[in-house]
Amino acid sequence: MLSFVNDYSEGAHESILKRLVETNMEKLPGYGADIYCESAKKKILSACALSNGDVFLLVGGTQTNRIVISSMLSSYQGVIAATSGHISTHEAGAIENSGHKVLEIAHENGKLSAPVVKAFLENFYADENHEHMVFPGMVFISLPTEYGTLYSKGELSELYSVCKDYSIPLYIDGARLGYALASDECDLALPDVADLCDVFYIGGTKVGAFCGEAVVFTKNNAPAHFMTVVKANGALLAKGRLLGIQFDTLFSDDLYLKISRNAIETAKTLRCALKEKGYRFFIDSPTNQLFVILDNKKMRALSESVAFGFWEKFDGDNTVVRFATDWATDPKDVEKLISIL
Amino acid sequence: MLSFVNDYSEGAHESILKRLVETNMEKLPGYGADIYCESAKKKILSACALSNGDVFLLVGGTQTNRIVISSMLSSYQGVIAATSGHISTHEAGAIENSGHKVLEIAHENGKLSAPVVKAFLENFYADENHEHMVFPGMVFISLPTEYGTLYSKGELSELYSVCKDYSIPLYIDGARLGYALASDECDLALPDVADLCDVFYIGGTKVGAFCGEAVVFTKNNAPAHFMTVVKANGALLAKGRLLGIQFDTLFSDDLYLKISRNAIETAKTLRCALKEKGYRFFIDSPTNQLFVILDNKKMRALSESVAFGFWEKFDGDNTVVRFATDWATDPKDVEKLISIL
Amino acid sequence: MLSFVNDYSEGAHESILKRLVETNMEKLPGYGADIYCESAKKKILSACALSNGDVFLLVGGTQTNRIVISSMLSSYQGVIAATSGHISTHEAGAIENSGHKVLEIAHENGKLSAPVVKAFLENFYADENHEHMVFPGMVFISLPTEYGTLYSKGELSELYSVCKDYSIPLYIDGARLGYALASDECDLALPDVADLCDVFYIGGTKVGAFCGEAVVFTKNNAPAHFMTVVKANGALLAKGRLLGIQFDTLFSDDLYLKISRNAIETAKTLRCALKEKGYRFFIDSPTNQLFVILDNKKMRALSESVAFGFWEKFDGDNTVVRFATDWATDPKDVEKLISIL
Amino acid sequence: MLSFVNDYSEGAHESILKRLVETNMEKLPGYGADIYCESAKKKILSACALSNGDVFLLVGGTQTNRIVISSMLSSYQGVIAATSGHISTHEAGAIENSGHKVLEIAHENGKLSAPVVKAFLENFYADENHEHMVFPGMVFISLPTEYGTLYSKGELSELYSVCKDYSIPLYIDGARLGYALASDECDLALPDVADLCDVFYIGGTKVGAFCGEAVVFTKNNAPAHFMTVVKANGALLAKGRLLGIQFDTLFSDDLYLKISRNAIETAKTLRCALKEKGYRFFIDSPTNQLFVILDNKKMRALSESVAFGFWEKFDGDNTVVRFATDWATDPKDVEKLISIL
Repeated sequence: MLSFVNDYSEGAHESILKRLVETNMEKLPGYGADIYCESAKKKILSACALSNGDVFLLVGGTQTNRIVISSMLSSYQGVIAATSGHISTHEAGAIENSGHKVLEIAHENGKLSAPVVKAFLENFYADENHEHMVFPGMVFISLPTEYGTLYSKGELSELYSVCKDYSIPLYIDGARLGYALASDECDLALPDVADLCDVFYIGGTKVGAFCGEAVVFTKNNAPAHFMTVVKANGALLAKGRLLGIQFDTLFSDDLYLKISRNAIETAKTLRCALKEKGYRFFIDSPTNQLFVILDNKKMRALSESVAFGFWEKFDGDNTVVRFATDWATDPKDVEKLISIL
Repeated sequence: MLSFVNDYSEGAHESILKRLVETNMEKLPGYGADIYCESAKKKILSACALSNGDVFLLVGGTQTNRIVISSMLSSYQGVIAATSGHISTHEAGAIENSGHKVLEIAHENGKLSAPVVKAFLENFYADENHEHMVFPGMVFISLPTEYGTLYSKGELSELYSVCKDYSIPLYIDGARLGYALASDECDLALPDVADLCDVFYIGGTKVGAFCGEAVVFTKNNAPAHFMTVVKANGALLAKGRLLGIQFDTLFSDDLYLKISRNAIETAKTLRCALKEKGYRFFIDSPTNQLFVILDNKKMRALSESVAFGFWEKFDGDNTVVRFATDWATDPKDVEKLISIL
Repeated sequence: MLSFVNDYSEGAHESILKRLVETNMEKLPGYGADIYCESAKKKILSACALSNGDVFLLVGGTQTNRIVISSMLSSYQGVIAATSGHISTHEAGAIENSGHKVLEIAHENGKLSAPVVKAFLENFYADENHEHMVFPGMVFISLPTEYGTLYSKGELSELYSVCKDYSIPLYIDGARLGYALASDECDLALPDVADLCDVFYIGGTKVGAFCGEAVVFTKNNAPAHFMTVVKANGALLAKGRLLGIQFDTLFSDDLYLKISRNAIETAKTLRCALKEKGYRFFIDSPTNQLFVILDNKKMRALSESVAFGFWEKFDGDNTVVRFATDWATDPKDVEKLISIL
Repeated sequence: MLSFVNDYSEGAHESILKRLVETNMEKLPGYGADIYCESAKKKILSACALSNGDVFLLVGGTQTNRIVISSMLSSYQGVIAATSGHISTHEAGAIENSGHKVLEIAHENGKLSAPVVKAFLENFYADENHEHMVFPGMVFISLPTEYGTLYSKGELSELYSVCKDYSIPLYIDGARLGYALASDECDLALPDVADLCDVFYIGGTKVGAFCGEAVVFTKNNAPAHFMTVVKANGALLAKGRLLGIQFDTLFSDDLYLKISRNAIETAKTLRCALKEKGYRFFIDSPTNQLFVILDNKKMRALSESVAFGFWEKFDGDNTVVRFATDWATDPKDVEKLISIL
């Protein structure tokens, strides 16, 4: 059966597997002190054009969000996020479990707009009872968003400017960052992302790795003893090489972006075909996730030969579904899918 | 340079690598719902001779300790552990970070004795102020211990009996469980371990895997919605296959025990040679870690050709060092080490 | 200057002061083990017509909410509350600080309706991703609500029925419970409240006491070792007598309800006068808080001779303000206020 | 029956009661913004001779320890305390519940010595694995200690000097601070205490108040938005006046010290009599708590006419008991006790 159900269905890119095999019996120091972690960090900083950055390699996305957010907030602070943000919805309350409220605000197509964030901050400080409320201490966004949408360079600059006005960090969840950067509609390069936020992570799990997310603190602003914080959260791998080798490979020869383009190209082919065939889109998303409104009968019929994601009810007769491509999507599978749509 | 510095210096066993490569492009469900996780769990339960057990695959040891302990304790409870226990010393306060005190009590060669634990519990309940104190809610031990020592079946039974008398679970950290089970001096088989505690984990990271620890709840006693708890702690891998394939491999054809024996055999060879050459042992440990007292000059000289672990000062002139073998230790390296000792 | 700014501006009811003075030099056991705490608890249980209840005396409302909620939830659970609920807005993130998400849902005049709660619960369990989400583990309501509104016996029964269907407790924040029970429009007596929830608290701070909230677990369902939980949260008073004497007094000779009626009577007088004079009400609240829409000029003029609460902007020219009465409000002050309105 | 069981058996000093009655019907702002809190803070700063201090009034001791410690530590830090420290033993794990380990070290008569603390800190930083351990982030001591002993000015200076060398704050739990300052053997005045630490609290509960502890940050070092932190911990009293009036009274006309002297005088009388009669002391404590070794038969006989504290077993035949005096102890009761000893 064809599958477009998500972007983490396969293992790792073959180059990663090759390097894991080649280096397997080398005796390396533990806990991220090996040469591959070191090399990966240098390559990432270089790709980000950062001279004052710090990189830490963590295992998964929820883990990364939890640790980055809780280590940068004071106990009286919460994090602003879209109601559709991953931390608001599908991380099982990891942020609250670490002691902080997610201050959910309205989104537009999965995005936070600078004016909305600014208004929230203004209202907070204008409220004479704000000492009895959770202080906004960070802004969280995803790039691409949970709806596959993008921030333009202008939008991101404007949002970052609001954050700086209020002296709170901007954090970008880049679980699918490659699929943003590789999109035709993206006017941001990796150094722009690094420049326009305080901390972000480059997702590996959804872009060619078995696991792994590279956190980048962009302005010499890593929390003190961050490695100990990571350890206390149970997130420090003894065999840090597993992360180092993967990211070292992904950031050699521009592999991360190259393999991201496969997801974008295959999604584009599918998007065009869906449009031609007259399918309705729930949202216009220029990355690797396509949200389509299907008649329920059609949906049931299709589900016999293709796996896709059930997103939400649209109305009594229709449902929003998601087709996802990724670094490993075979263009032939896209052709097959198109033929049966 | 030779290295006996720890037991997590290499990558993964070649059978694991082979299976990762073979299965790499299979499209599998995420978050542990794949066939390899399923198969691994069945094999583990079978190896444990458990009909009422539950298995969960987590990524690392500190993570596992934190999640298992905090999910089984009530907020008013702490966990009893040896002062030498890993959770007491080298997990960066992960247990306290999750809200619980480690109730540290005296050890003998890294072990907790049943009478000492019983006396602690008796004294606690005899204290008329105990409602103002942290209730002992679990007993934590390591097998082998942090000093490489073992509990006999009798000792473990006695300890478990005390726990049952007080209705608190016994939890065994098996980060190096294979190296206990494979030891000549161990009279416990895996089903005995499963029988004599409420929950334990089978360490993968130190026994042939890149990462991974298999938590086994032995008596239908997994905490409710444990997967959600794991997720909230940031410990749920999207590509659960990475853990499933590793443990499925380790528990096929008795591989876990077979490769554990290499660590024991090479350690035995080294132990005999050290004894013959008149080295003093700090502790008598029958597993894969040897703790030797070296004259400081000798230590410095040796450190030029061999990497080993610095354990602690013995006195002004001598130091306790650790030589560790593992599943991947090359017997030729042991011979080389012996020749220069 | 007249003050109707809130309902915690004065000290304690004179009967309480009298009892504090009379008992002052008695040597009493600490931590709530004294005869006054014991007597208070018995009187409260009797007033609630409970044979299977437990009462604990805590110091303040946010403290009580934090401890009750966190001690009754599992780590994977959050608490459902109205977006206008005190725990959602003005408790500085106390619930999140204790590790749990507040699952905010829409309110009607500050109230949660049974159908809305039921729909939320149905949708949660219908969502195939719910294992990655925060489980709803409790429903929190306030009686009266933060808008001074009331639940009828029918509404409360219906809501409790939904909770029981989903096996989650219903918790009632009764910071101003007296002002609900004393309202003409309230068809609930204290035993009804006790019957129609799993846990609630009877507010002392806003109803005649210096401090103190009496938590009532109604169905033999107090969390194990609740006193130790209270201690660990820093909420156990050494001189528990301070709470015991206050609640013993408030629950002697029906004092709690009697003094509550003063708030209701004075509020009623004020409400009638405001209506007669043509003031617009923001919300129709039958308890001790009146929410009135004032023209901004009128508001500024009035604020020179009366203190009242600023609630929120209504529109560019008008503001919602709050007048609060309480157990100590002098009817003469109400007359004075009316004369200058 | 006579009672010397603890120092929190009575209510509040009569001057406090008088002021509570006199001010009772004044309408005052909530949450500590009233004139009495303001006045109390000024008087306390003046008594401490502090120009750069901040004072916050909290309700109880465990609450204060929990909030001060957790708000001054980073998540990777713990607090050094004596094994006999209150936070180590009898606060139900409040510090761990807030996420931080208590790093327990050996005491001498309840005291931490500067060399022992220094050695602990040196060893920590010398340990090459310290990034995997809990960082010492604060030193906690009690004055007087839990054994009623005192630090001399020289000892305290030396200890503070170690803390400053390692850039970690020194925090003094002054639950019974008055009974230290009033002791003949104490060479510290309140300004010395304020000078020789970063933060301390002046205990009210055990020295004349119903409740209340005044936290003093001595060097412009109150944590940001401390009031919000207090609120999130459920420790902010709506009627802050209850604390303000008590401390304003205690710090008028030197009342705090005056009433403390009663405890010291009565303890002295009792101590002399016990010595004369040949009783053995478990420890030599110059404050309001006397620790005496009683033959078990004697103890049982005595307990029929006097209430005292059971401290710990001394040996099979003897027990350590505690006699406590306080601000309210009647000298006649001491005479009665002496007569039956």
